[in-house]
Amino acid sequence: MTSTTWRTALDGLAAIGAGELTSEALMRECLQRVAVREPDVAAWQYLDEDRALEEARRRDASASRGPLHGMPVAVKDLFSTHDMPTGCGSDIYADHLPASDAAVVALIRRAGGIVMGKTVTTEFAFFSPGGTRNPHDPTRTPGGSSSGSAAAVADGMVPWALGTQTAGSIIRPASYCGVAGYKPTYGLINTAGLKPAAWSLDTVGVFARNVPDARQLAGVLSGRDLTPSRPATPPPRVGLCLTPQWEAATADTEQALREAVRCIRGAGGEVHEVSLPASFDELLEAQRTIMIYEASRSLAFERDLHGDQLSDQLKALLDEGSVLPAERYDQARRIARACRAELDRLFADSDVLLAPSAPGEAPAHVTGTGDPVFNRIWTLLGTPCVNVPGLTGANGMPVGVQLIGPLDGDLTTLEVADWLFSRLQEG
Amino acid sequence: MTSTTWRTALDGLAAIGAGELTSEALMRECLQRVAVREPDVAAWQYLDEDRALEEARRRDASASRGPLHGMPVAVKDLFSTHDMPTGCGSDIYADHLPASDAAVVALIRRAGGIVMGKTVTTEFAFFSPGGTRNPHDPTRTPGGSSSGSAAAVADGMVPWALGTQTAGSIIRPASYCGVAGYKPTYGLINTAGLKPAAWSLDTVGVFARNVPDARQLAGVLSGRDLTPSRPATPPPRVGLCLTPQWEAATADTEQALREAVRCIRGAGGEVHEVSLPASFDELLEAQRTIMIYEASRSLAFERDLHGDQLSDQLKALLDEGSVLPAERYDQARRIARACRAELDRLFADSDVLLAPSAPGEAPAHVTGTGDPVFNRIWTLLGTPCVNVPGLTGANGMPVGVQLIGPLDGDLTTLEVADWLFSRLQEG
Repeated sequence: MTSTTWRTALDGLAAIGAGELTSEALMRECLQRVAVREPDVAAWQYLDEDRALEEARRRDASASRGPLHGMPVAVKDLFSTHDMPTGCGSDIYADHLPASDAAVVALIRRAGGIVMGKTVTTEFAFFSPGGTRNPHDPTRTPGGSSSGSAAAVADGMVPWALGTQTAGSIIRPASYCGVAGYKPTYGLINTAGLKPAAWSLDTVGVFARNVPDARQLAGVLSGRDLTPSRPATPPPRVGLCLTPQWEAATADTEQALREAVRCIRGAGGEVHEVSLPASFDELLEAQRTIMIYEASRSLAFERDLHGDQLSDQLKALLDEGSVLPAERYDQARRIARACRAELDRLFADSDVLLAPSAPGEAPAHVTGTGDPVFNRIWTLLGTPCVNVPGLTGANGMPVGVQLIGPLDGDLTTLEVADWLFSRLQEG
Repeated sequence: MTSTTWRTALDGLAAIGAGELTSEALMRECLQRVAVREPDVAAWQYLDEDRALEEARRRDASASRGPLHGMPVAVKDLFSTHDMPTGCGSDIYADHLPASDAAVVALIRRAGGIVMGKTVTTEFAFFSPGGTRNPHDPTRTPGGSSSGSAAAVADGMVPWALGTQTAGSIIRPASYCGVAGYKPTYGLINTAGLKPAAWSLDTVGVFARNVPDARQLAGVLSGRDLTPSRPATPPPRVGLCLTPQWEAATADTEQALREAVRCIRGAGGEVHEVSLPASFDELLEAQRTIMIYEASRSLAFERDLHGDQLSDQLKALLDEGSVLPAERYDQARRIARACRAELDRLFADSDVLLAPSAPGEAPAHVTGTGDPVFNRIWTLLGTPCVNVPGLTGANGMPVGVQLIGPLDGDLTTLEVADWLFSRLQEG
């Protein structure tokens, strides 16, 4: 979708490292793309061009600070930045300037990366959308809650973006926008300075144009080496998992999964069906219970002192959470724990599971940000998930597929995602 | 230590509820105590008397909002308050006014409580002390990091205070100051708006003059009924657990445990020795590894942009965490998980475990805030812990004992603590 000197983040990084490209030139290309496309896409909540360029020039003038040196990263406007307003998708914080940077923002800067600006989030990462449109079709949603991050990366405005997932806010928009989205194992990336929605679900992750790019940024943020660890990944064993929510899948998603299966088998991988234990049927409702129970506490200040500035939808959700008996919450957490204990068995014969990322192509913008129905249970379980892009639906819109790994199996999950991404590109 | 119209928080609450005492009168008594004692104790980071009284008058003029109506609560200065500066024990945030209230602050206000002011914390809840002194002996430390909260409650300046524990920051100061301290099961009380130190350890808890008071506030904050659930608690089965750190216990702590055991047996309770599996020996070091690894990310902004305003001790700790290999962190978390899986067996014959709260009487203020050696492993395991006050050491200083319950066994743990607290008062 872009015609720039960098096709991928790793290309740009290598070119800057080799002295073939300046950070300023790369930033200029990003800003030119924004200038052309932002009126249609509306991905950015805050972006100061002069400042982004100034920071790029400073990087050009200094020795390499680390593995993101000179590269722009977009930050979902739910993470605190001490030098850029942080609005959390709500009028309540329209001009709020935090006193500090979120952990991931500080780590990006420590590694030489440049916070290019803040991207649009739904209201406190829930369901009330911002104005961002899908770059492939402005009548459609980019998904949410990481709407601006997914759209900006998909449109080539920035090589990388930060997102968060509490229900399905990384994998779903990545699928709708046709980019790589990676939600790590719960807790792998530090959440300090993220506006909390539901503490036991909130997970920080990344968007990139492709899986290798996603690995680079996630490696920096997690303090781990997530780059390829083997000379060549052997063809994987994949468990096709239709999940208890299968009835929500459209023909486009069915077709995408079929193509992914054909591609995996064609490249020597093994695919077998995996069905989830019956107890997993309760996870969808358990995720919702936990989310609203915790959110009604996290956002108690906003509910009590600024209720008139909250959407009716969010108010209703917080009020429902406030009166939910603790026993219901405890029961939901017990269900999650019991299912987590089943995961080892579930992955006994599979390196990863293959499942839908979303019900289908991105729905119309006016209908909201789409349904996280295929994401909620994995967020609750805490497993690593990757949206692998490359396939399309009947209208030519992106339809991703989701790879899910065992807890702490992030490296393997990314390697299989990388492998599948390459195979889909070839096919 | 006080001579007021309220002896306990529950007394004050009942008197206000019955119209026998106004919130303003109670607040005035608290403020008079502060006026007399604060020069010696230095518990408060921020306290505006006029504003506290004004808020009390507003409560007196309104119908009851909830189960804390009209009662003052002190808030550790690590929790955000939108209307009071939040300094986190660091010059970096000397005049910082957050945009919102922490979840627990909003919940206190929702229940009719009054945030009386902010209490002194050590630097970002680590080991560099503020100026607070032990109210029983100003040459000694009140403990930390919740120094001001423990001291203010012990001194009768306020009936309740909020604290947090990442290593031993509730149970240890409660022991040193002779008050009830309750660290709930990890995750029971929402941490939104708390300045994160180490996300997988940070636990919100409470201080009160006695166990029933602690139950009342903790019930409001956790959204649970933690008040007595049985007409009379039967004498408990208690596992005496000397922990792998027993060599750190002084004669005062040995003596306090002996007296607690005698008291329990004398009242019909059962005490038997419980020894921890050998694998628990690794928990102390694992807690430290996890704490510094996570803190080095949580505080990356402060380290990189305000390093000159951090103590040398904290800088060294953050730098050590930054270069710690992720494998060491992962190994520490595996150790914790494995030991957590042993807890059911450990509590098979015990309602609670009895262990030291601290090595002994509060040490000299100049030596720091004391050693959390008896708290770290329980914080890492996530179990509920209560400091039961009532005993003293050779110098007449308070020496508490710690009761520890199984995960999510908060109600039982509090009931046994309540039972033991009453028996010690009688004895």
